Amino acid sequence: VVSDLPTWLTMQRDELPTPALCLDLDALDHNIDTMAAARPDTTLRPHVKAFKSTELARHVRDRGGHRSFCCATLREMEGMVDAGLSDDLLLANQTLDAARLGALAARSPHPITVAVDSTETLAVALEASERGPVAVLIDVNVGMPRCGCDPETAAALAARARSAGLEVRGVMGYEGHVVGNPDRGWRREQVARSMAVLREAHALVGGEVISAGGTGTYDLHDWVSEVQAGSYLLMDTAYGELGLPFRQALSVAATVLSVNDEHYAVADAGLKAFGMDHGDPTMVDHDVFFCSDEHVTFTWIDGRRPVVGDRVTLYPAHVDPTVTCHERVWVLRGDEVIEAWPIDLRNW
Amino acid sequence: VVSDLPTWLTMQRDELPTPALCLDLDALDHNIDTMAAARPDTTLRPHVKAFKSTELARHVRDRGGHRSFCCATLREMEGMVDAGLSDDLLLANQTLDAARLGALAARSPHPITVAVDSTETLAVALEASERGPVAVLIDVNVGMPRCGCDPETAAALAARARSAGLEVRGVMGYEGHVVGNPDRGWRREQVARSMAVLREAHALVGGEVISAGGTGTYDLHDWVSEVQAGSYLLMDTAYGELGLPFRQALSVAATVLSVNDEHYAVADAGLKAFGMDHGDPTMVDHDVFFCSDEHVTFTWIDGRRPVVGDRVTLYPAHVDPTVTCHERVWVLRGDEVIEAWPIDLRNW
Repeated sequence: VVSDLPTWLTMQRDELPTPALCLDLDALDHNIDTMAAARPDTTLRPHVKAFKSTELARHVRDRGGHRSFCCATLREMEGMVDAGLSDDLLLANQTLDAARLGALAARSPHPITVAVDSTETLAVALEASERGPVAVLIDVNVGMPRCGCDPETAAALAARARSAGLEVRGVMGYEGHVVGNPDRGWRREQVARSMAVLREAHALVGGEVISAGGTGTYDLHDWVSEVQAGSYLLMDTAYGELGLPFRQALSVAATVLSVNDEHYAVADAGLKAFGMDHGDPTMVDHDVFFCSDEHVTFTWIDGRRPVVGDRVTLYPAHVDPTVTCHERVWVLRGDEVIEAWPIDLRNW
Repeated sequence: VVSDLPTWLTMQRDELPTPALCLDLDALDHNIDTMAAARPDTTLRPHVKAFKSTELARHVRDRGGHRSFCCATLREMEGMVDAGLSDDLLLANQTLDAARLGALAARSPHPITVAVDSTETLAVALEASERGPVAVLIDVNVGMPRCGCDPETAAALAARARSAGLEVRGVMGYEGHVVGNPDRGWRREQVARSMAVLREAHALVGGEVISAGGTGTYDLHDWVSEVQAGSYLLMDTAYGELGLPFRQALSVAATVLSVNDEHYAVADAGLKAFGMDHGDPTMVDHDVFFCSDEHVTFTWIDGRRPVVGDRVTLYPAHVDPTVTCHERVWVLRGDEVIEAWPIDLRNW
């Protein structure tokens, strides 16, 4: 197992066992710097679900200066607490697991915050708060057909929470139906529509935190106190179509295993190495024909016929579920492998 | 973490932390028995890639009586050797990693077999054989645009392997372009066409092993010495459309987190809990609207409006990449959880 290699060993990209999830550190740092300039400190709440690695979170904190993070799962929250990254952790999701949330509150050196959108999820936050400090954000539906309540319900939940002694820090509302559309003008209009709903809710709920947004709308918000974004760090080919100032930092390296004369070739990164919900990955210098479990079959452009043993590079269509396919990401500066960061926040 | 729960604790399906990958043991055993009746002993080579669990492999061996297995990755091979399931292990894939293949050959108490389709992959098998017994199957392309060589190349590779002292056990040819088509008559015709190519290759190569097939064609082969099949054990909704005598044994249990009045509800199993390349999972009693990272948004049929906290059941569209999303599978008899089997052969 290569993770047992001595750390003093210098490895090059082409020596990595494949399929290998690779992180271009210069691109990552460019992305961190670009976002931190636009949304410094706590005006950005980096979303852990997009990278699921405490090492990467620590790098984002140290370089970007962001001290607050949000998570989609309790496993992510637990890992961040254990890694000492708990300054201001938000579970930007509902949970019904009062035992685990309570254990987390008891263990965290700082108060934890959780989203609630119903009396049931509020009751869970209340129960958990008996074991340690828990605050809530009221999750408001701003147009995405997922979690979140309407502004009137938000007001009622906030009143109920406060009367029970729970801190209500504010509201959150994720315009997930907007963030991926390549038309910036449309995104701007839709953000305004969604934020009109969140404004209505916030007027009723109060609190200092107004949390919304994502990578595709990070610079279209002029009212919220913080934007939740994670994909900007590593990027993918879907977000790559939006003309954002972030670079593709994540790729999968594969090895050509078989070449079929003049027709196609096969490399060892298949659909188990990618989140496939947004479609096939994209290759450098080649065209993906199709993916099967452990293979990508591809055709080549012009005279670029590969030979067995060649290395090829693939970019994922969707970053979040691609990262979760891997147990580690290799961190590279140019072609040199300088570290391996565990994807330690996978699973639930 | 629930995997630390004492083993004497009785748990019910509805008490599992969600999302939970669940295995219906009665359905699994039905599938094992049905296949073992049709293809007993070594006439079936169960494919580890479909379930990636040594505990499940051991159960298949003990109940079904199959002693030979095939794998798609070196990690799967290594795990099977370490688990003592190495009687007759085939890497039904090409590899260029002579160091790892050699270490595996050195460690395995039984000879290992590897597929080769080129002088490059044959050279790797030869190099590995210096450290322990390695045999080869010549991988023949029978119509699927992936690995495999033509019959003439197969003959040349076999001659080269034998002159170098390597055992050539026979041929393999996977008709992966055929196995998923719901038209049984078409599958039968295409199997015959593919096997005509493999016959031609086998006449030139020789050897006792003729390995082909999959779950969709397991009973359409009358000539091969063994069928490679794995999906029949757990099944998925794609294979479910073929009218095979296997039951759906794998599901994902989720909890309803949020209900939006009369329109839709949200449960906590999203696209990170499923292989999505074959499309959305299918719900019992509900219709999937869409999946996001950690959520499924769904609508309900007739009066079956769920409430927060309800449990729902989802069936994956593609079994192999769904299993790899999870670190364990909960084994149930009816609604009672009787074991948790680690998915210990994930990653590469």
